[in-house]
Amino acid sequence: MEVTRRTLASDNAAPVHPEIMEAIASANLGHAVAYGDDPWTRSACEALAGQFGTECTVAFVYNGTGANVVGVQTALSSFNSVVCSDMSHVAVDECGAIEKLTGSKTDEVRSVDGRIDVAAIEKRLEVLGVEHHSQPRVVSVTQATEVGTVYSPEQIREIADLCHERGLYLHMDGARISNAAVSLGTDLAGTTIACGVDILSLGGTKNGAMFGEAVVVFDSELVVALPFIRKQSTQLASKMRYVAIQFERLFATDLWRRNAEHANAMARRLERELSTREGVEIVYPVEANGVFARMPQRVIDAAREEVFFYSWDAGDRVVRLMCSWDTEDEEIDRLLAAIDRAL
Amino acid sequence: MEVTRRTLASDNAAPVHPEIMEAIASANLGHAVAYGDDPWTRSACEALAGQFGTECTVAFVYNGTGANVVGVQTALSSFNSVVCSDMSHVAVDECGAIEKLTGSKTDEVRSVDGRIDVAAIEKRLEVLGVEHHSQPRVVSVTQATEVGTVYSPEQIREIADLCHERGLYLHMDGARISNAAVSLGTDLAGTTIACGVDILSLGGTKNGAMFGEAVVVFDSELVVALPFIRKQSTQLASKMRYVAIQFERLFATDLWRRNAEHANAMARRLERELSTREGVEIVYPVEANGVFARMPQRVIDAAREEVFFYSWDAGDRVVRLMCSWDTEDEEIDRLLAAIDRAL
Amino acid sequence: MEVTRRTLASDNAAPVHPEIMEAIASANLGHAVAYGDDPWTRSACEALAGQFGTECTVAFVYNGTGANVVGVQTALSSFNSVVCSDMSHVAVDECGAIEKLTGSKTDEVRSVDGRIDVAAIEKRLEVLGVEHHSQPRVVSVTQATEVGTVYSPEQIREIADLCHERGLYLHMDGARISNAAVSLGTDLAGTTIACGVDILSLGGTKNGAMFGEAVVVFDSELVVALPFIRKQSTQLASKMRYVAIQFERLFATDLWRRNAEHANAMARRLERELSTREGVEIVYPVEANGVFARMPQRVIDAAREEVFFYSWDAGDRVVRLMCSWDTEDEEIDRLLAAIDRAL
Amino acid sequence: MEVTRRTLASDNAAPVHPEIMEAIASANLGHAVAYGDDPWTRSACEALAGQFGTECTVAFVYNGTGANVVGVQTALSSFNSVVCSDMSHVAVDECGAIEKLTGSKTDEVRSVDGRIDVAAIEKRLEVLGVEHHSQPRVVSVTQATEVGTVYSPEQIREIADLCHERGLYLHMDGARISNAAVSLGTDLAGTTIACGVDILSLGGTKNGAMFGEAVVVFDSELVVALPFIRKQSTQLASKMRYVAIQFERLFATDLWRRNAEHANAMARRLERELSTREGVEIVYPVEANGVFARMPQRVIDAAREEVFFYSWDAGDRVVRLMCSWDTEDEEIDRLLAAIDRAL
Repeated sequence: MEVTRRTLASDNAAPVHPEIMEAIASANLGHAVAYGDDPWTRSACEALAGQFGTECTVAFVYNGTGANVVGVQTALSSFNSVVCSDMSHVAVDECGAIEKLTGSKTDEVRSVDGRIDVAAIEKRLEVLGVEHHSQPRVVSVTQATEVGTVYSPEQIREIADLCHERGLYLHMDGARISNAAVSLGTDLAGTTIACGVDILSLGGTKNGAMFGEAVVVFDSELVVALPFIRKQSTQLASKMRYVAIQFERLFATDLWRRNAEHANAMARRLERELSTREGVEIVYPVEANGVFARMPQRVIDAAREEVFFYSWDAGDRVVRLMCSWDTEDEEIDRLLAAIDRAL
Repeated sequence: MEVTRRTLASDNAAPVHPEIMEAIASANLGHAVAYGDDPWTRSACEALAGQFGTECTVAFVYNGTGANVVGVQTALSSFNSVVCSDMSHVAVDECGAIEKLTGSKTDEVRSVDGRIDVAAIEKRLEVLGVEHHSQPRVVSVTQATEVGTVYSPEQIREIADLCHERGLYLHMDGARISNAAVSLGTDLAGTTIACGVDILSLGGTKNGAMFGEAVVVFDSELVVALPFIRKQSTQLASKMRYVAIQFERLFATDLWRRNAEHANAMARRLERELSTREGVEIVYPVEANGVFARMPQRVIDAAREEVFFYSWDAGDRVVRLMCSWDTEDEEIDRLLAAIDRAL
Repeated sequence: MEVTRRTLASDNAAPVHPEIMEAIASANLGHAVAYGDDPWTRSACEALAGQFGTECTVAFVYNGTGANVVGVQTALSSFNSVVCSDMSHVAVDECGAIEKLTGSKTDEVRSVDGRIDVAAIEKRLEVLGVEHHSQPRVVSVTQATEVGTVYSPEQIREIADLCHERGLYLHMDGARISNAAVSLGTDLAGTTIACGVDILSLGGTKNGAMFGEAVVVFDSELVVALPFIRKQSTQLASKMRYVAIQFERLFATDLWRRNAEHANAMARRLERELSTREGVEIVYPVEANGVFARMPQRVIDAAREEVFFYSWDAGDRVVRLMCSWDTEDEEIDRLLAAIDRAL
Repeated sequence: MEVTRRTLASDNAAPVHPEIMEAIASANLGHAVAYGDDPWTRSACEALAGQFGTECTVAFVYNGTGANVVGVQTALSSFNSVVCSDMSHVAVDECGAIEKLTGSKTDEVRSVDGRIDVAAIEKRLEVLGVEHHSQPRVVSVTQATEVGTVYSPEQIREIADLCHERGLYLHMDGARISNAAVSLGTDLAGTTIACGVDILSLGGTKNGAMFGEAVVVFDSELVVALPFIRKQSTQLASKMRYVAIQFERLFATDLWRRNAEHANAMARRLERELSTREGVEIVYPVEANGVFARMPQRVIDAAREEVFFYSWDAGDRVVRLMCSWDTEDEEIDRLLAAIDRAL
């Protein structure tokens, strides 16, 4: 198999970080009790307790969709709804996994720069108590958002306060939470439990892991059902140690931060350079590891031939350029050169 | 982390086979399009086409529960039922994943030595066409069974014929299909497509992989919905290459066979030795890699202290001794010695 | 349309009792707020509070399957199971409605004379706490059972005690609870709340109503979700008064008792007469309004030509003869005459 | 029970039309095979075949939510979506019944005057074939709409053509289809099968019935599963004759038309009168039996005291005035007088 060139397609097109590969190999010794009752899993949970405090409960799962549906299920009955952004992964990129696995409605709120706000959420709560309507029970925010922006701690806190006043829970889809924390200059707790988040999908895959995410639950009432939900939702790994060791390596060290810092820095460089090009327009604030830019179609075509990336809104000629832990200046240079030639 | 001693607990307590670890490392180069549109996945699909013929469609998933629920969904509506053994993993060991993800009923048939037969299945088909009852649509057999027995090709064929006559599909839970094929002296096709199986859950994890199973669909009408079912059921891996490369290594080479042959041989040795011990009774024919034995409780306790294993039926003092690709004579010797001391 | 002769097919083949028809007509005046906020519904709830005490919460629904799935949902998460008889309507006669609407498994226990007992239920509770298995959360008993037997108050109480000790709830499918209460010589409370039942499907249709059943919830924690569950499960009637008035008439008067007494008495007569016929065997104790009898096939055929009824187990030549509020001696005489001629 | 005064609250606050009550009483004779195998049901199906042609298949259900979820299920897998208006009953007034019973997403399209159009629908079809997104499979339109407007036959046809070109089905929520047909001057076929509708929820309750709706399926491939879907979705009535006779009376005679004509005429009178009042603004074209008007709050309060009705958008001071088969000039006069006094 030939090596494929690096792209700006997605942070999950990137390979596994060598330190994680090394960690996986180190766990490949002897027998371990299956399904998580093993020392690697305990060690990884301790690493996360170190990040979030000891009150959290962790359930490792396979992927982001799995983390989201397992996490929100801890709070949902089928007659509930999940209030979320109209760009949110849970609403538009999981082929209806929420609806299938919970029976709940995803109640999409118009987002601004990928974020939803308290006023818009509050409007959806008017139906509370009326049997004809799905009952909002969870608000889900994505941090960093699907368009590379980041909620401030104050924004998260404000949404959490509203949730808790009205008997709802706050879920955070943190597939890229490391990128958000780095962007905000906080630790992981600083944009989650410190702001009132109740349920977190903690991403590993997009930050250099091979596979695996973690559901982190901060509300003790929600944890009782967690093991059963994970199992029934097909998200319980038998050889759990190979998931756990990745999280141990990412979060017991500063690897999560190094990877995210690098990816974010590459995105900022891209933004800096692109914003000087006439004809290229940055369409969302660049606050994490993604750059969304509008360009003439012939520029898109030429640039993509040089370095692969995806369209975000083909009709509007907006493209998404995702940086990852392994993005190098080389491909950014190549991309820019191709853009300049085409402009 | 200290190395844990080998056990007879489960074939998923075993580590990853070194050739598979090496293969995974070899795929960790450069970028790959996510979700399976990559050369490793294509290569793995070709390897499976080599095993099963070119008419099959393959969808890699994360685990056995995932493979089963994704596979049977291709044939099910919610008003259907899955006729299966009362010991089957789909009915009793997946926390109701079939019910949750399909809405269908698992219709348990009394098994004999882990197997169900045509007569028992046929009785469940009497409700066909009557709106008050869940409509049987899939028969699911486990090969090798949960108690280490194996269906003969003739038995599978007979069930498949009944299914097809009555408009049903035959699903095979092949978490240990390699062990079954080795036991039967056939290739993988010889106990699946050659016998009329329509949908196969092809196991990797219990045969030396890190994680990952494959849904293999032999009926062309059932494949249209497969990608959507996999995604919505949370079983689509983003960094797919790391699943695919494991299957490529297992099934493009004879690794699947070597691993299964070894585990089966160890089980046969265990059976041979145990059957000479007075007070120890083998309760199911040993046809794959598991040995089920009844022993006095003090013998169980003493043996387990030496080499860990699980009870199968605690009240009846039946234990399950599972061999895996890495089982060595050493732990069998230790187990037998402990048994002999206690007897 | 010609009038059809009375049958012994089912208590829901019978027409509506004239007093109920009269009650319905009496409610057909002026406007009523839809969905139950009307005086007829309040009055019917009061009638049921008179039967069960003031702590119960009532939700009227359309039919028995609706009552069962709405009722059990108040206690279930999808990873739960409902322990029930292998003859129970919820498990075998609702086309998988429980599975579809709750995602839970129906865990069938072998019944004896239609009843399940504490020992058999207890065996199913061994899986409690183990994430691989559906978690029993509700035990469902049918009173009177599907084969016309009746649980004694002591039997119900024993099951309820087990449920409550182990954190489960007891649901009673009371499609024929009036027949059971009459048979036991108790009032409706005497076989339900007085014995520890938590959730009751209270039957109307089989006791002379046109349509409509009531979910009666005795556990205050379970009622919060009830209105939403009913609505989402398609069981909320808009012109609710026409359901409610039927329950008001049945249960604010002794109509429920008169109808059940009559049907039970007719069944006892049938039993008495049949048990004197050589070649006819009563296969279940006749304790409510159904008689189950084994007869030679030619006798079945001849009798059915005279008075229609259904087979219960065709292979075993067992038929079901159901009496209803309108059964008269005339058709029993005709049936017996036909049987005598054929014997 | 005292008679309640007529309101403008809802067409399901109205009582049952006397001709339907009389029909119900006429069916209350003798025994009938349960679940629809009876002469009344056959007769009602013939009446509907007379309306729609002989190719249709009819399944009677209990209510509108039941009709909608049973109907769309004939075409849906859980990974599908139902494209519908953001005001549609299926999306916002059924407490998530579609999501629960089908696992599918309701994909809300912004409506204009309650209607959705081809351009907006087409935009939602861009995801067809992409596994990450719920796959549109059904478009659902409401006729008459939730805000009292009516799709023209051409508009329905245009949507149907788009559906069929792209492999989708067109569902019509016809809770008020009689009002729509009368408004358009067509028969029932003229706004359904003649325009390409594949699945119809045919309303009875809001047009003078006691309870009951009909699912009418025009596509022969969709009917196979219909009986099982109805049963499993809790919508199969045992004493079916009492549903069927209502449909027979409504649709074998011109009762459906008389009732709808009357309600529509009353709405037009209301519109005519209100539009002359300064300070009162009609906010949607009045094309069926509902009038939506914006008024000063004190006028709303005063008018509602005289004749009860509901707010539609409380913040925007828009109220909904629904006329029904029994609306009389008397309450309209009272309403107008109260409005005039308050203005």
